[in-house]
Amino acid sequence: MVRTGSASVATAGPTLAVVAREAGVSVPTASKVVNGREDVAPETRRRVTEALDRLGYVRRPRFDAAKPPRLVDLVVHSLESSWSGAVLHGVEEAAHDAGLDVVVSAALSRTRAARPQRGWLDKLTLRGSAGVLFNLAELTESQFAWLDQHRIPFVMIDPVLEPPPGVVSVGAANWQGGVTATEHLLSLGHERIAVVAGQRRTMCSSARVAGYRSALASAGVAHRPEYVRYGVFDESVARHRMRELLDLPEPPTAVFVCSDRMALGVYEALAERGLRVPDDISVVGFDDLPESRWAAPALTTVRQPLAEMAATALRLLVRMMDGERPEGTRTELSTRLVERASTAPPPGR
Amino acid sequence: MVRTGSASVATAGPTLAVVAREAGVSVPTASKVVNGREDVAPETRRRVTEALDRLGYVRRPRFDAAKPPRLVDLVVHSLESSWSGAVLHGVEEAAHDAGLDVVVSAALSRTRAARPQRGWLDKLTLRGSAGVLFNLAELTESQFAWLDQHRIPFVMIDPVLEPPPGVVSVGAANWQGGVTATEHLLSLGHERIAVVAGQRRTMCSSARVAGYRSALASAGVAHRPEYVRYGVFDESVARHRMRELLDLPEPPTAVFVCSDRMALGVYEALAERGLRVPDDISVVGFDDLPESRWAAPALTTVRQPLAEMAATALRLLVRMMDGERPEGTRTELSTRLVERASTAPPPGR
Repeated sequence: MVRTGSASVATAGPTLAVVAREAGVSVPTASKVVNGREDVAPETRRRVTEALDRLGYVRRPRFDAAKPPRLVDLVVHSLESSWSGAVLHGVEEAAHDAGLDVVVSAALSRTRAARPQRGWLDKLTLRGSAGVLFNLAELTESQFAWLDQHRIPFVMIDPVLEPPPGVVSVGAANWQGGVTATEHLLSLGHERIAVVAGQRRTMCSSARVAGYRSALASAGVAHRPEYVRYGVFDESVARHRMRELLDLPEPPTAVFVCSDRMALGVYEALAERGLRVPDDISVVGFDDLPESRWAAPALTTVRQPLAEMAATALRLLVRMMDGERPEGTRTELSTRLVERASTAPPPGR
Repeated sequence: MVRTGSASVATAGPTLAVVAREAGVSVPTASKVVNGREDVAPETRRRVTEALDRLGYVRRPRFDAAKPPRLVDLVVHSLESSWSGAVLHGVEEAAHDAGLDVVVSAALSRTRAARPQRGWLDKLTLRGSAGVLFNLAELTESQFAWLDQHRIPFVMIDPVLEPPPGVVSVGAANWQGGVTATEHLLSLGHERIAVVAGQRRTMCSSARVAGYRSALASAGVAHRPEYVRYGVFDESVARHRMRELLDLPEPPTAVFVCSDRMALGVYEALAERGLRVPDDISVVGFDDLPESRWAAPALTTVRQPLAEMAATALRLLVRMMDGERPEGTRTELSTRLVERASTAPPPGR
């Protein structure tokens, strides 16, 4: 039996033949209207629709044996950011291919930390969620345990912290991205290269900064601790960090900023001081959000393939829903440099 | 009875007392673990979790009488645009407040026209969708009829075309927005004001252009047909239209662009000719997407309250799901001018 909610399968009610007779049309014509076909005259459609209404006909779904599509949950912080937009796009497309529907919730935005509230998890079982994708989440130990106990498979997209052993996650090659950004600036002749990062405790910040340090070390450029500024992934904090860098006795000639949104704050700090990008100072971002094209000059940045990461996470989730166990627990997708107009050789070169 | 999918209500299985005995803890302690409480020692949690696993305990949902949350569907064109992000944000918040979950689909993106495919509608009944929000959709007559027949309430957010009588929709005050943008340019002293619009047949384009015409007429400024350029809501087409305007014998000194994304294309066309915004030419956009702050100079634009429109649509849908009939069929939310840095008096004033 097909179980659905409100509108659905007729167990009683008039047949299509009764409807056709009532409307004064043939059964095939009535069938066309019921099945949403275009090749029916408006007046005929009106008559049939009225007959359907009058008789209380309820259409039988085309696939009687079909089950309702299974639902997976995507849980994010914010739906307004273009970051989330890319993730949502990737998940939705891959879910469509897998015949799944996606319930989207910004449950992570409604708590202090990046974790859903208690009642939210209960909803998952009540609704029979087939699996969950968490984007940029930070779950507690007991939330991980809860998911395990309830046998709800889940995959984390870009987890904030290192997840417990065995938890499946997908992220960008953050370390490699930090190397790429820094090598690009080194190749232009910069040596005074600073980094404006997000939270120190987050996996993605620490990996990007580690990549920056490795690239400097490989190039034999001394690492200056005062050039490394942690903050949060936020435009206004990045503006402050950039001001601090410009106030140093020897300010940098180039800066690697660990997100595109933070790069906007960096641009603002530079504009305040009358510094031109890239003539006076070079800037490299991270993410390649659509906004980076709007910046003036257009931002050179490290692209992380958010939609692909999200689609990969969905596909891993589907395998777990089918009882498989993915080979590895962390899947990393590669990043690449997108050169635009915000980098140039240092002044005087 | 609570009906859920895979993981859910225990009808048999061990009691919590059995689990507690197996784990060597008290029943309240076992209960804490099962309920995801934080105040349990890790070692205790581990023992209880193992016992739960071993015994195959399945937790009873907290609210036995509760039904699974009802689902509503949001159908969009694209999930990647910040336009959709704002809509999704508004819908999700309002749905959360109403105790509803939101299934998000980009079904409109998978067809040539802005309408879902046939199979997609079938899914709605199979899944028991409680209602549907369509964003920027263009449904066929038979799709409208299908929704009516299946008694699935729906609301259109910013419908592309005038919907059939009785269809409930929410949009921005587009006509007023066109007036506002044009009056702003007139007040700066511009008389040679052009408009770059989207598709002529769309409700929002035609209303914005009508507002532009009304404002010119009220100010006693002659309307020049060659200053009105329709296209599509797309950056590259807008770039072409702006080039055409610049090639006129008497090019405009100001342009009202009917979307922020199109304004980016206009900026590009102006930069190609070495024209500075706003010194040589003023630009006003429409939407107030987050990107408009990134543009250089920051874009003066007409804000349409997308998240509020979406939340309003959800609340109307909930009333329709409860059997009410909204008073009007079209709800318009007001727009307002957001002044930034892309407008100034015409050159030589």
